[in-house]
Amino acid sequence: MNIKMICRITALAVLISAAFMFAPLFIAVADGQTRNIWAYAITIIGMGVFSAVMLIVSRSSKNTFYAQEGFAATSISWIVMSLFGALPFCLSGEIPSYIDALFEIVSGFTTTGASILSDVEALSRCNLYWRSFSHWLGGMGMLVFILAVLPQAKKTAGYGMHLMRAESPGPSVGKLTPQLRQTAMILYGLYVLLTVICFGFLVIGGMPVFDSLCISFGTAGTGGFAVLNSSMAGYSVYLQGVVTVFMFLFGVNFSLYYLLLLGQIGNVFRNEELRLYAGIAGGSILLITLNIAKMYGSGAEAFRHAAFQVSSIMTTTGFASTDFEQWPAFSKAILFLLMFIGACAGSTGGGLKVSRVLLLLKSIGRTIGDALHPRRVHTVHMDGRVVEEKVSNTVNAYFAVYFMIVLLSFVLISVDGYSIGTNISAVTACFNNIGPGFEMVGATGNYGHFSIFSKLILTADMLLGRLEIFPILVLFSPDTWSRKR
Amino acid sequence: MNIKMICRITALAVLISAAFMFAPLFIAVADGQTRNIWAYAITIIGMGVFSAVMLIVSRSSKNTFYAQEGFAATSISWIVMSLFGALPFCLSGEIPSYIDALFEIVSGFTTTGASILSDVEALSRCNLYWRSFSHWLGGMGMLVFILAVLPQAKKTAGYGMHLMRAESPGPSVGKLTPQLRQTAMILYGLYVLLTVICFGFLVIGGMPVFDSLCISFGTAGTGGFAVLNSSMAGYSVYLQGVVTVFMFLFGVNFSLYYLLLLGQIGNVFRNEELRLYAGIAGGSILLITLNIAKMYGSGAEAFRHAAFQVSSIMTTTGFASTDFEQWPAFSKAILFLLMFIGACAGSTGGGLKVSRVLLLLKSIGRTIGDALHPRRVHTVHMDGRVVEEKVSNTVNAYFAVYFMIVLLSFVLISVDGYSIGTNISAVTACFNNIGPGFEMVGATGNYGHFSIFSKLILTADMLLGRLEIFPILVLFSPDTWSRKR
Repeated sequence: MNIKMICRITALAVLISAAFMFAPLFIAVADGQTRNIWAYAITIIGMGVFSAVMLIVSRSSKNTFYAQEGFAATSISWIVMSLFGALPFCLSGEIPSYIDALFEIVSGFTTTGASILSDVEALSRCNLYWRSFSHWLGGMGMLVFILAVLPQAKKTAGYGMHLMRAESPGPSVGKLTPQLRQTAMILYGLYVLLTVICFGFLVIGGMPVFDSLCISFGTAGTGGFAVLNSSMAGYSVYLQGVVTVFMFLFGVNFSLYYLLLLGQIGNVFRNEELRLYAGIAGGSILLITLNIAKMYGSGAEAFRHAAFQVSSIMTTTGFASTDFEQWPAFSKAILFLLMFIGACAGSTGGGLKVSRVLLLLKSIGRTIGDALHPRRVHTVHMDGRVVEEKVSNTVNAYFAVYFMIVLLSFVLISVDGYSIGTNISAVTACFNNIGPGFEMVGATGNYGHFSIFSKLILTADMLLGRLEIFPILVLFSPDTWSRKR
Repeated sequence: MNIKMICRITALAVLISAAFMFAPLFIAVADGQTRNIWAYAITIIGMGVFSAVMLIVSRSSKNTFYAQEGFAATSISWIVMSLFGALPFCLSGEIPSYIDALFEIVSGFTTTGASILSDVEALSRCNLYWRSFSHWLGGMGMLVFILAVLPQAKKTAGYGMHLMRAESPGPSVGKLTPQLRQTAMILYGLYVLLTVICFGFLVIGGMPVFDSLCISFGTAGTGGFAVLNSSMAGYSVYLQGVVTVFMFLFGVNFSLYYLLLLGQIGNVFRNEELRLYAGIAGGSILLITLNIAKMYGSGAEAFRHAAFQVSSIMTTTGFASTDFEQWPAFSKAILFLLMFIGACAGSTGGGLKVSRVLLLLKSIGRTIGDALHPRRVHTVHMDGRVVEEKVSNTVNAYFAVYFMIVLLSFVLISVDGYSIGTNISAVTACFNNIGPGFEMVGATGNYGHFSIFSKLILTADMLLGRLEIFPILVLFSPDTWSRKR
């Protein structure tokens, strides 16, 4: 295990998040809030010192860097970033408990959007900004950002792919260009571009600039932290429409936008994951519209709310345009199902990912085929290519460990004594990085009432969900920490 | 597809269940209930005629019989047996709705034990007997019974293994002896023996003979239909203890009893599935005892109830010694987890099966190993032998399709508008062949309030769970019904 290299990467991640913390610091200065200025200043200094020490310690690191190091570096960076990122909330006194602050920032970085706050509007603007910005940073990934902005010395050229593979969501990661740095730059370029367009549409529609910024961050990262207690319900129909469309767009694999720019439109629309993603979203919107039509004045209004909530839950964003806790059980059950499916691989969304679900369905088909005709050779195809046996097996194993962790977390947080519906949806919403669940953690609820123990379990679930389990599990493997290789 | 052979097997299954229906007919005669006598007599005649027609139609069947035929024959036999088996409930007027009667008998055959009745004690003895006996028949399997009792002509020697594989629970089926018929006889022999011993212990403890018979059937098949509204809560501590122990014993792989008879005690106690099964049961009993200790007068009483409920839920029997709906959420969550794990493969219990869970855990470990060290070769071992890649992949695919069906059923039955806890536990309890769930379908609840649509979904879930999905799915494969092979 190349611990020095891991320290180095962690140091870089912390250093860059510290740089991003100057924005909320300036907001605190502009708003003249002395305590908040100190909160951010102290945190930035602490992060600077930590990074400096780490960089010095890891000066003479070796070059050996394998998948194991990639996993460990990613999960450790995320944990350390979160430990620091929670400090301003705590030091500013606006979220006095450090565990609560940690829950909140992990919820931010992992683009979950689950909150322990019952009154979001009581937060200062600097904290609101930092909370929402953490969505944006976590959405595309901090380490991918490092790959994009830092000049890649020859020495470090090998580790990029391992980091990207560990941090990017989905069953497999494709390089868009032979140069990994270029791939990372293209991804972030598209991400910035789409975020700016979203921001523009919101400002044009009359949303205050600060709100537009925060909502754009939350939409782009498919996070879901809002600046008003009513989430998105208080904004105009136009603004809700913009967010509906952009949530859906940020749930699409970013490689497809690149293909679109290259003019390969045919390839984009033949993409099986995109078609299934759009199909599931469309079908769900239709069913929910029919189911809730009676609750709203018109079919159009029912459709609007159905589209918003489907887009929000399926992309694992978690904004709400209405209190869907009041919807009939059937509509809620569809949303519950969408929580598991999630968005496309290579997007900022969470959940199992549509492509995993697709691979699962195909591998189930193959298993049945194998059972019926043991002598025929069955292969799984996707987008016209044969899927390697190994990818398919990893997806199946991922699904298994995914459900085991969900069930185990459910058992653990049950110690607090809330209902099955609350507990199962809290775990599902945190693990899939959605945010709101049902019953006590529904659209108008929050996670503040859980015990410290349960908050820590849910915090771990959010990280496990965002990093797709394996990087975190690697930390608990004795093999990882043995000196031998 | 060899449809004639499937007709033949179905005819035999129906014929033998008709033979078993003479017992409730005699009870009805003994109790002098004219309507019930007619109900059973008409059903028996109907089944006889059906079988005769089928046997004549399938006279000149070909010998080709593959896995596909095994799957189809098994699921069709079970469906037809259930369609007939429901008739007496309906014709006797004691369960007027045919859909309800079907739910009840499928719940019986699949050893689920979920009931639509709010007042079990209102049933006549003949119906109570038939309900409980269906557990016993479904537990070890109707087709395994046919293999055991019918002389195996050379002509049919090939099909046995395919039938046994389709009907027996667990990831793989082992022949105990080279002769399949002998294997089936040994299994049924052990089954009868253990049932008789259980019956003896109950009678000795003062339980009425009729109750002892029904409770023995329910325990042996890990079904859970009782003869009193209070399930097992009204019986003495001794009787509850006997049932606790026997439920656990019927959840063990029957092959191990055979090894025990052969004197291979070492092999039995080295069996990894048995050790995990006992470990999970022991751990759960301990945790629940600690959690519920305050609710009961003494630690011993808490332990008794914990052991009873853990044994009942884990083996997917579903008897209750107390209203566990009143237990704290943590204890209920443990029971919920046990619902998924289930009993051992090759037992009469349902659920995923402990060996599948074990294989899943091992294959997850291997996948992580593969990700970390792509160049090393990782294999999965069980009981000292290498598990074939194919078995391991099939288990993973099974887990995936299992959860997909659970989630989909959950969405479908949500149309009735009940709570998440009710719906998710109803589906879980039916699919895993347990019976009681939580909230409205808890220990003192029943399934009577669901709509016809939801009852049919849950009925399908019970069959899917008992036959382990694939045999039923095969019926929906267009490939199965094409004339070409």
